Amino acid sequence: MLTIMDQTPRPKFRLFVDTALTAGARVALDHEQSHYLKNVMRAGKNAPVALFNGRDGEWLGELAALGKHHGEVAILRQMHGQRREPNVRLIFAPLKKARLDFLVEKSVELGVSRLSPVITRHTDVGRVNVARLRAQAREAAEQCERLTLPTVDAPIALAQLLDQWERLPVGAPPLFAAVERLSAPPIAQALQNVAEVQERAFLIGPEGGFSRDEVALLDKAPFVFPVSLGPRILRAETAALVALACHLMLSSGDACIDDATDNAPSST
Amino acid sequence: MLTIMDQTPRPKFRLFVDTALTAGARVALDHEQSHYLKNVMRAGKNAPVALFNGRDGEWLGELAALGKHHGEVAILRQMHGQRREPNVRLIFAPLKKARLDFLVEKSVELGVSRLSPVITRHTDVGRVNVARLRAQAREAAEQCERLTLPTVDAPIALAQLLDQWERLPVGAPPLFAAVERLSAPPIAQALQNVAEVQERAFLIGPEGGFSRDEVALLDKAPFVFPVSLGPRILRAETAALVALACHLMLSSGDACIDDATDNAPSST
Repeated sequence: MLTIMDQTPRPKFRLFVDTALTAGARVALDHEQSHYLKNVMRAGKNAPVALFNGRDGEWLGELAALGKHHGEVAILRQMHGQRREPNVRLIFAPLKKARLDFLVEKSVELGVSRLSPVITRHTDVGRVNVARLRAQAREAAEQCERLTLPTVDAPIALAQLLDQWERLPVGAPPLFAAVERLSAPPIAQALQNVAEVQERAFLIGPEGGFSRDEVALLDKAPFVFPVSLGPRILRAETAALVALACHLMLSSGDACIDDATDNAPSST
Repeated sequence: MLTIMDQTPRPKFRLFVDTALTAGARVALDHEQSHYLKNVMRAGKNAPVALFNGRDGEWLGELAALGKHHGEVAILRQMHGQRREPNVRLIFAPLKKARLDFLVEKSVELGVSRLSPVITRHTDVGRVNVARLRAQAREAAEQCERLTLPTVDAPIALAQLLDQWERLPVGAPPLFAAVERLSAPPIAQALQNVAEVQERAFLIGPEGGFSRDEVALLDKAPFVFPVSLGPRILRAETAALVALACHLMLSSGDACIDDATDNAPSST
């Protein structure tokens, strides 16, 4: 029988703050958060607000003060403790606006822990607005009830990334590179063949694919595992999501899935 | 070593036509296709065009005539034979514009064979433009090098769908229903536990989730298998993609993946 796992009523507002969260604390909201609550959502005094900071789990508070440019939440009690989240990095060639927005939102929903834009030969996007990517990642995290924000890196050239990877002090973790029209094992098989390590990383090329030189670079790097996502030609943002979804569903790294099973009431 | 699997140069234009494809045939293009080639893409006479019809594989042709309202392609030779494609149905509560567009495009890329809009209690979209969904599905299929178009059904109420399902002459195939905040096994586990049948079907609820009555209906239907997509709260379109990606990666039904392995040159 299907039973409801969590009956706690959830506040309508959920915000990330970079402040310690403890019962009785008063937490200041920044200008944008205050504006959002006051002018966009028209939140009233004492409205319940959920807060998380990436470290202390999720807390229930209520709006103690709300002006045009500042606001304050009085913390009441913890709703959830911090839980382990997946450790998965997405390295992607930046895309044009709507598709990039989509890639960020979806990969945050799928639990990505680090987003790294990489510049390749056929990347047809000039400038990457990292601040904008961070703001979008934050908004998506607030929306999907994550307890952390992903790290968003500044862009780096592919050759430089591979060079740094090789010289990582911890040893080079496997980098699964999605390739098209090239001989490579299906992703599910590749993921099962490579022992699970601390962090998993996926590399997704631009719409135009990797150049011949880039394919040669990837081919000779011992830590790169080329993977196929099937015979259809996926758009870059679709490829990113398929890789993340496949990883999450097959890995034991998503505490999420453990939790979902562990928390199921024994009466079912 | 990474080797290129298919060196055939691909035409810039790829279109679905509902006509038999054989060498030497001349195939008429419809008004929209002619307009697209002439005015949007400014295709020249004799430009190479790839055609598929869902039955005869993919053929190379060249533009033999192109006017404002009509065009004709002379078929030269077959590039690929028809191959088996996944048999997977997505039943989804319609979403608002951008997210619905996205859901259709992505699920076509992921090989969905049938798209079925379903009306639930919390569906907040009044009217479903089925013709528009079909046009989008066609465009996405042309883009991602599929050899078929998915079927797009007219909307149906959830209760009616479940009722019809139960009385299917072939017996009711399993229907995997993505549920949130309810006790359900992770999707990867559920897919592996249920024997693979002809068709797989996934049900994705609306943004507001299923109502209590709907959960009760799903709960008592013997052919419904509730599945969890993890602890984060996914948007409806993300949930659809995760389910499809997970299915494709775990199933043997995606000839795509077989092909990718089979076609790898033996010299690798």
